[in-house]
Amino acid sequence: MRERPSIESLLELFADGKVSAAARLITILEDGGKDAERVLDSIFQRTGNAYRIGFTGPPGAGKSSLLNRVTAKFRAKDHRVGIIAIDPTSPFTGGAFLGDRIRMQAHSEDPDVFVRSLASRGSLGGISNCTDEVVDLMDAFGKDLVLIETVGVGQSELEISEKAHTVVVVLVPESGDGIQAMKAGLMEIGDIFVMNKADHEDAEGAAREIQDTLRLKDIPEGEWEPKVVLTSAREETGIDDLIDVIEEHRRHLDEGGRFANMRKKILRSRVRNALMDRMERRLRASDKVRELLEQRMESVYRGEMSPYMVVRELEELVSIQ
Amino acid sequence: MRERPSIESLLELFADGKVSAAARLITILEDGGKDAERVLDSIFQRTGNAYRIGFTGPPGAGKSSLLNRVTAKFRAKDHRVGIIAIDPTSPFTGGAFLGDRIRMQAHSEDPDVFVRSLASRGSLGGISNCTDEVVDLMDAFGKDLVLIETVGVGQSELEISEKAHTVVVVLVPESGDGIQAMKAGLMEIGDIFVMNKADHEDAEGAAREIQDTLRLKDIPEGEWEPKVVLTSAREETGIDDLIDVIEEHRRHLDEGGRFANMRKKILRSRVRNALMDRMERRLRASDKVRELLEQRMESVYRGEMSPYMVVRELEELVSIQ
Repeated sequence: MRERPSIESLLELFADGKVSAAARLITILEDGGKDAERVLDSIFQRTGNAYRIGFTGPPGAGKSSLLNRVTAKFRAKDHRVGIIAIDPTSPFTGGAFLGDRIRMQAHSEDPDVFVRSLASRGSLGGISNCTDEVVDLMDAFGKDLVLIETVGVGQSELEISEKAHTVVVVLVPESGDGIQAMKAGLMEIGDIFVMNKADHEDAEGAAREIQDTLRLKDIPEGEWEPKVVLTSAREETGIDDLIDVIEEHRRHLDEGGRFANMRKKILRSRVRNALMDRMERRLRASDKVRELLEQRMESVYRGEMSPYMVVRELEELVSIQ
Repeated sequence: MRERPSIESLLELFADGKVSAAARLITILEDGGKDAERVLDSIFQRTGNAYRIGFTGPPGAGKSSLLNRVTAKFRAKDHRVGIIAIDPTSPFTGGAFLGDRIRMQAHSEDPDVFVRSLASRGSLGGISNCTDEVVDLMDAFGKDLVLIETVGVGQSELEISEKAHTVVVVLVPESGDGIQAMKAGLMEIGDIFVMNKADHEDAEGAAREIQDTLRLKDIPEGEWEPKVVLTSAREETGIDDLIDVIEEHRRHLDEGGRFANMRKKILRSRVRNALMDRMERRLRASDKVRELLEQRMESVYRGEMSPYMVVRELEELVSIQ
């Protein structure tokens, strides 16, 4: 029987550029816990070089085909590309809708494209908990561009703007007030808006509409003005324009320390989130907290205590220096 | 100059059934902090009687008109109705899109209908932080039905199922793969699916499609099977059917202690969330935590420490009994 390779040996193989070791380390990151922390602690010093581009938008907007085209262009420019696709877990089967293999077949032979699908935390398309860690791993593995694809349902829209340096919102020309209003939610987070399926008869009108809405936005002097790009992943048009605008946004961030500030903000919020996760786990693990909670909840159910009265009592079991 | 009424006097007027006092107390709940807690502590013992129904769905699905019709029917059955409409904050103006007044004009003369709009936390349609508290206030004010309307963008879908006893998902017949896939996210949380705009030519087909998707769901023996109802708020058809199905779901919950269990689950998650909010505030308020964080973040920026190393150090400043 072959033994499972140790984390140490995986990390060594990873440092030597072995894809299979990287893939196994990602699985460890997905599983979380102490092993995941050990992996991250060990690789973190080699991170900080990858530029992160988020692609979000409603299901059916053609994000995956667009990513295929964009990846080909970035490869032609000699970028080493990591791709993380967050698959919404199917509410009925519990499994992911798509796998790596069918998703990026076009690049499956290219050793400089590393694709990984992660199942979303909830079925509503939220970003997987370990996305940051997997991005770090691809970064440490030498990818200088990491593309993160999320489905714009659920909380992912907000979260992607906490993880990516450039956020690309992918839309398709569609009618209906509902869709229009929904776009309003995405308006805030996009650095670049792609109107995909440019061969559609309504495409130019829809792009103009987005542009008009963006004009209402109050952008401080010198800050980035979101751009709208027409593409057709099927007809392969507009992809160069999109790459140009992504690079323009990247140059904009490089000016005046904007990029460094953004990177710091992202890292601070990661530490804060990880700390709160840990606090929650520790509170759950405390017998005293659990017993007091169980007891007091009975009073809450009977209407004798308000939820805040219980919180104030629980709080007293915690001391912070 | 008239003095601002004290919380005590507002609570007295509230107990006497004064609408203006209830409205001012809601504003206090919205502002949060110690005053909000005092209000909740004082009214909580009078809560527990209101049945909570959530209405969610994409913008433009006609939720507001449907709520108007539903409210009229519930009033005809002598229910006292509270309505909380979560308005997505406009990303550009920061204000709410709609106000109470234009929203429910039909019931503005009815003292037994209490309408309040709350601005959503984020612009992506999340539920306002104080929704639970405002529901409690309406409950304590004697409303026996509280309808909560949220826009199905952002995180609200998930959250509504943690706040409402019955979740009604309102949809309209529309084509497009994107819309279909998006519905998949809503499939999980709806107890009742309304296909609104039943006069639309595609309505019956769309309703059948939802029904077919729901059939794929693995529902344990004896559990609620989500129902699909065709309505037209404009034509006023199907509203009675909807009320019947809502009441059927309520009877289902009343059997075998399901309702009591659900209520307990909701209260437990409220206490847990409030406790975590408090922990976060206390961590932010600690000078030691802040200083250590600032210092260590510099090492993280330079890649010398991983985020988890910092978390493990910060954790040591916290002790839990």
